[in-house]
Amino acid sequence: MSIDVDQLCHKATTLINELQPLEHKLLSDGPESIDSDLSEIRKRARTLGLWSPHLPKYWGGLDLPLPVFAYLSEVLGRSPLGHYACNCQAPDIGNMELLLEHGSSRQKKDFLGPLIEGKTRSCFAMTEPHNPGSNPKTLTTLAELKDGNYVINGHKWFASSAQGSEFAVVMAKTPNPDRNDYEQFSQIIVPTSTPGFERIRNISIMGDVGWGYFSHAELKLNDCVVPEENRIGAQGDGFALAQRRLGPGRIHHCMRWLGIAQRALEMTCKRAVNRSMGSGQFIRDRQVVRHWIAESRAEIHGARLMVLDAADQVAQKGSKGARIAISIIKFHVAGVMLKVLDRAIQVHGGLGMTDDTLLSFWYRHERASRIYDGPDEVHKDVVARATLREFES
Amino acid sequence: MSIDVDQLCHKATTLINELQPLEHKLLSDGPESIDSDLSEIRKRARTLGLWSPHLPKYWGGLDLPLPVFAYLSEVLGRSPLGHYACNCQAPDIGNMELLLEHGSSRQKKDFLGPLIEGKTRSCFAMTEPHNPGSNPKTLTTLAELKDGNYVINGHKWFASSAQGSEFAVVMAKTPNPDRNDYEQFSQIIVPTSTPGFERIRNISIMGDVGWGYFSHAELKLNDCVVPEENRIGAQGDGFALAQRRLGPGRIHHCMRWLGIAQRALEMTCKRAVNRSMGSGQFIRDRQVVRHWIAESRAEIHGARLMVLDAADQVAQKGSKGARIAISIIKFHVAGVMLKVLDRAIQVHGGLGMTDDTLLSFWYRHERASRIYDGPDEVHKDVVARATLREFES
Amino acid sequence: MSIDVDQLCHKATTLINELQPLEHKLLSDGPESIDSDLSEIRKRARTLGLWSPHLPKYWGGLDLPLPVFAYLSEVLGRSPLGHYACNCQAPDIGNMELLLEHGSSRQKKDFLGPLIEGKTRSCFAMTEPHNPGSNPKTLTTLAELKDGNYVINGHKWFASSAQGSEFAVVMAKTPNPDRNDYEQFSQIIVPTSTPGFERIRNISIMGDVGWGYFSHAELKLNDCVVPEENRIGAQGDGFALAQRRLGPGRIHHCMRWLGIAQRALEMTCKRAVNRSMGSGQFIRDRQVVRHWIAESRAEIHGARLMVLDAADQVAQKGSKGARIAISIIKFHVAGVMLKVLDRAIQVHGGLGMTDDTLLSFWYRHERASRIYDGPDEVHKDVVARATLREFES
Amino acid sequence: MSIDVDQLCHKATTLINELQPLEHKLLSDGPESIDSDLSEIRKRARTLGLWSPHLPKYWGGLDLPLPVFAYLSEVLGRSPLGHYACNCQAPDIGNMELLLEHGSSRQKKDFLGPLIEGKTRSCFAMTEPHNPGSNPKTLTTLAELKDGNYVINGHKWFASSAQGSEFAVVMAKTPNPDRNDYEQFSQIIVPTSTPGFERIRNISIMGDVGWGYFSHAELKLNDCVVPEENRIGAQGDGFALAQRRLGPGRIHHCMRWLGIAQRALEMTCKRAVNRSMGSGQFIRDRQVVRHWIAESRAEIHGARLMVLDAADQVAQKGSKGARIAISIIKFHVAGVMLKVLDRAIQVHGGLGMTDDTLLSFWYRHERASRIYDGPDEVHKDVVARATLREFES
Repeated sequence: MSIDVDQLCHKATTLINELQPLEHKLLSDGPESIDSDLSEIRKRARTLGLWSPHLPKYWGGLDLPLPVFAYLSEVLGRSPLGHYACNCQAPDIGNMELLLEHGSSRQKKDFLGPLIEGKTRSCFAMTEPHNPGSNPKTLTTLAELKDGNYVINGHKWFASSAQGSEFAVVMAKTPNPDRNDYEQFSQIIVPTSTPGFERIRNISIMGDVGWGYFSHAELKLNDCVVPEENRIGAQGDGFALAQRRLGPGRIHHCMRWLGIAQRALEMTCKRAVNRSMGSGQFIRDRQVVRHWIAESRAEIHGARLMVLDAADQVAQKGSKGARIAISIIKFHVAGVMLKVLDRAIQVHGGLGMTDDTLLSFWYRHERASRIYDGPDEVHKDVVARATLREFES
Repeated sequence: MSIDVDQLCHKATTLINELQPLEHKLLSDGPESIDSDLSEIRKRARTLGLWSPHLPKYWGGLDLPLPVFAYLSEVLGRSPLGHYACNCQAPDIGNMELLLEHGSSRQKKDFLGPLIEGKTRSCFAMTEPHNPGSNPKTLTTLAELKDGNYVINGHKWFASSAQGSEFAVVMAKTPNPDRNDYEQFSQIIVPTSTPGFERIRNISIMGDVGWGYFSHAELKLNDCVVPEENRIGAQGDGFALAQRRLGPGRIHHCMRWLGIAQRALEMTCKRAVNRSMGSGQFIRDRQVVRHWIAESRAEIHGARLMVLDAADQVAQKGSKGARIAISIIKFHVAGVMLKVLDRAIQVHGGLGMTDDTLLSFWYRHERASRIYDGPDEVHKDVVARATLREFES
Repeated sequence: MSIDVDQLCHKATTLINELQPLEHKLLSDGPESIDSDLSEIRKRARTLGLWSPHLPKYWGGLDLPLPVFAYLSEVLGRSPLGHYACNCQAPDIGNMELLLEHGSSRQKKDFLGPLIEGKTRSCFAMTEPHNPGSNPKTLTTLAELKDGNYVINGHKWFASSAQGSEFAVVMAKTPNPDRNDYEQFSQIIVPTSTPGFERIRNISIMGDVGWGYFSHAELKLNDCVVPEENRIGAQGDGFALAQRRLGPGRIHHCMRWLGIAQRALEMTCKRAVNRSMGSGQFIRDRQVVRHWIAESRAEIHGARLMVLDAADQVAQKGSKGARIAISIIKFHVAGVMLKVLDRAIQVHGGLGMTDDTLLSFWYRHERASRIYDGPDEVHKDVVARATLREFES
Repeated sequence: MSIDVDQLCHKATTLINELQPLEHKLLSDGPESIDSDLSEIRKRARTLGLWSPHLPKYWGGLDLPLPVFAYLSEVLGRSPLGHYACNCQAPDIGNMELLLEHGSSRQKKDFLGPLIEGKTRSCFAMTEPHNPGSNPKTLTTLAELKDGNYVINGHKWFASSAQGSEFAVVMAKTPNPDRNDYEQFSQIIVPTSTPGFERIRNISIMGDVGWGYFSHAELKLNDCVVPEENRIGAQGDGFALAQRRLGPGRIHHCMRWLGIAQRALEMTCKRAVNRSMGSGQFIRDRQVVRHWIAESRAEIHGARLMVLDAADQVAQKGSKGARIAISIIKFHVAGVMLKVLDRAIQVHGGLGMTDDTLLSFWYRHERASRIYDGPDEVHKDVVARATLREFES
């Protein structure tokens, strides 16, 4: 492979280190305070040659294959700002990949182009407060086709980064008697300026009401009218397209989580080496802490190998072919990260409870990793059922 | 016993139910927003006969023995506002118990009286940012005796509820060559209006900068001058007095945690019964969730019996005699509560991540239960060393 | 209460200590080797006043209420020979309780009397190799009534202690169209000398084929003919009677498990104190081991309180009324014991793997505690379903 | 690479399947019963081209690089007889590797040759009952050099497979004032026919006293005299040589454990698919069991990637360079295997407790995996200390 992964990661590490003052500002003054700084950092990422690593060169990206992107993603994951700095942050990265593969020329021009340039942001509106995310067929947001337009009504939440977004990709029911239960849904682009598109609130999540990119909105769509050509892909393909983006999406998340876990482990080690316990002892002299460090290192190491293996499988067999590997990493890696974070907080003592370090930020916000994109329980059932099928006689 | 525990708990349950609108306000608008409401609720607690359950009748309290207080404390623990409503909230309850037992007449008149009437609040300043809480001998805040006054200099943090407090009980070094290492410290009352008493900030804890009672301050004492008679107890008795208040203090905490765990379990059950998963199924139809419920119930039940047993031991043998039982519940019950909370969040899915329920509040703030008042690791060592001593030949 | 529990436990401790040479013989030479010694020990138990603690005085027992028996049972549980020495070993204790409560005069005379005197042993044959123990309705052993006799055919296993037993209590289908699904079964006394009663083998369990009391048989009943009057209780009451004996039975097991756990913890402590690691260090100097000791102590303590509480509930409300408490301790205490045993083995290192200590014996044989009398999974579902019912609207 | 790994594993699978009748005989009639059958199976392994996979072609082996051997080792690990059938069983494989690399020509001719041909077996005697395995410097077996001979006295145990062995490799103290603490020990070949070489007993391990290859002996060396030229390598190199063989040895063990875990998982799946629970349900319909299957699959998958990665590291950097990776897999993989086995037993219910399946055999014997070759605690400390060193300033 002609890509120099080490060099890439080295550059990314440089960027991440430069982000540290911004992280402190984020923690102490909130996301609103770093808005203009982030633009500067995005410029810096371009200069370093780290812009849009997931995109083809034609679109200004680095054209990284997924297994290589995975390495980079871990490094970027070390900071809550890493992926954003390089324009490969969720949910935009998913929307970019979706539009790139399935968008019409007009959609690419109007919606994808500005995203890629970093001029706009977007969001994804699927989950609904009154329906279980684990059973998407229960979604009730409705897009009725009238005179070449969709009239959309519904109630969504956990639309991450909706505040400040140019448009939302909305999963809506587009009833069609000729297709099966799973084919009753489509993904439709709804500009946030559309009349009737209402951001009710930024949901307060684990103590943070958030702002802009760092927010999660509750939305209402009240008779929102958008042209039919805003639908991405064919009518009824909503879930099929969503499935396809899941593979890379989960690789990104998992490697980001490993970046978090790795940095938390490093913080733990630094603390263990430097924090005096009095009487000439340091935290490192506590065997229990040492064992946590060993276990965390082992678990992170195993999880990393699993994600890299899954990335290879996605690259070779597609999201569908790599389905089991993807479900495995989804629940396994989230669990590892949260365990490592919990140990890191314990080693940091009172400091770990404060917002003076990133540990609390991650402890709070990444608890969601076991819930979004399918809770652990759904993924375990996917893996188990597929495994059991092999033993049917 | 002439106390009707059931009736007491029933009244407390009434109060807790009345607190629910305030809890929502706390979650959505922050602690500042409920200030005046809280005063009303405190009046209501008085009316219900629930005021100052820990205090002797002479001081206007209910004179509850510790094992009875434990039952009440679980009920009050169901709400973050329960103990405050009844004027038995930490850290005031500890300060009241301390002053009651060891305060001079003047201290009782000037400082204890207003606390008991609920006219003032107080805080406790022991932990220092640069010294390990697990080894209190390393504390460096210094109180030098000069002309009948203490001149105090030091840096403290995690002074809970300092904002708005009338005074702080400060643990400070009062060097005395005639006494041993543990006897170099005294507890001194420092009014927050003392010149040089500086509240640097409310520390942002797990996403909450807090306010008033719901805050944790970083403090500096810069040449604070207070009369020698502000010392509580004899010079050098700081740790000895602190030890004595630990027993009841930990019983209160542990029962409060069980109130949290119990309510989280009940929320889980309600959710499991009412939340549809589509296809005619409810969460309760998931065996994994059922098993979490069974395990949580079992663990809470065992933990409750352990705390009640420890309360009996403290009542019979004092804090010192019940030392092992107290250390056991400190780490065991905190662990149970956090496990139950984690399961509750998982069952609530996205909703569990939001601040629309109390789960996130507790998940964040009660993570500290494994750290404050001695981290798990310290208590486990206390229990193990005492156990091993029995096997020395 | 006029029973002096401390004195009782003290006498039991004396007995248990005297059993230690026999334990070694059991471990090194197998159960067959200690047959005659056991008779001596049983005489000793009588002399000490420990015979048949569960039986009424009329029948020569100590008439201990269940909550008192629980304390004794923990002490006896410290040795694999303890309950047998005092004639309160499973499955005989269950059979005695059954016959005492529901046996006819003739059954009491012919079968119960000799059991109580310790002249015979008995077994219980319920589980079938090809049917799930968790769903007893699937049992297929059939007892057909012909001319005043039952003709029984079936295949059983895990008939503990069958070798050398005088009779088996057999759970068999006694079809009756007038009663419901659960009422199609009866318990019938089948002398092992009955023609057609075949002990196929002692099942090798975790490396032990066992012998006599210490064995678990696979049985076939081939046209075994016994008089109808050998049925215990009314026709179709098989499960109802079985349910009733479960409460005390599980209390006995759980307290026995705590005896095991407690002794394993004490062995761990002794080892930690005495075993040198070289360089002047002992195992006790390993913090990780200390924390295991603290956790084991805490978990045993909590489990003990839970069993004693369940014993009180059974005494007050009967097995049915205490159903949740009983299911809770069944899975919880088994888990605690196995965790404690696992830690004890780890601390003993290579020695823990050998049959030179009791740890391996328990590690192997008590793994079954999570399976027999209903696997963990069944009990968790019992607890959860009962809990959830309280939240139905 | 010119080796066809798939074909190799396919042949090994054929062999393993052919071993199943022997496994049953081993379980029901003990190791002694299968002695002659094993010879036949070894011939079959030769025919299949699976003989001595670890040895160079010159010595009649397959010359497999470690990373390839790892794959094969997992397949062989599926049966307790697999490695033995192919002459790559511990401890002989270690002794062969040791002699191959460090043996003199005479040692190779007299001792290695017959091992390779499968005509003899050997054992390794290091651990001593009264000294901690975790601190080898405390070993006290002494080899005194007198007139060109070593006179050896000592007490060893856990000399696996000593019964029937031709010789033992004995780790003994060879005091040398010119060398450091770790360089006071040598490995010396002691034929078991040497006068004074006493096999006291086969230690009964988890219920099995074992026999022949399947045994673990306690040994005494009473004035055993062997020529100085029986020392392997230079005087004082005992530990250095032992260290070098650890890398491959642990890879073998870990892959063998994964073979066990994988087969246990497959047994679990088969059981879940085929075992009826009555009422039209099968075990697979229990969500809790499904989740165990998913977790086991995930954990085995991660562990396998970790071992293959460690094998690559050993191949590239040697045992010393791969030290952390090796310590990580040692504790991590053992833990995974034991967890998977425990779940498998629970799913098998009563059957899992019997010796009718391999689960009990493994549950009992592989518990030692967390103890031998350095207990978990030692390896975690190795990993932690190395990790912390990177953070020293």
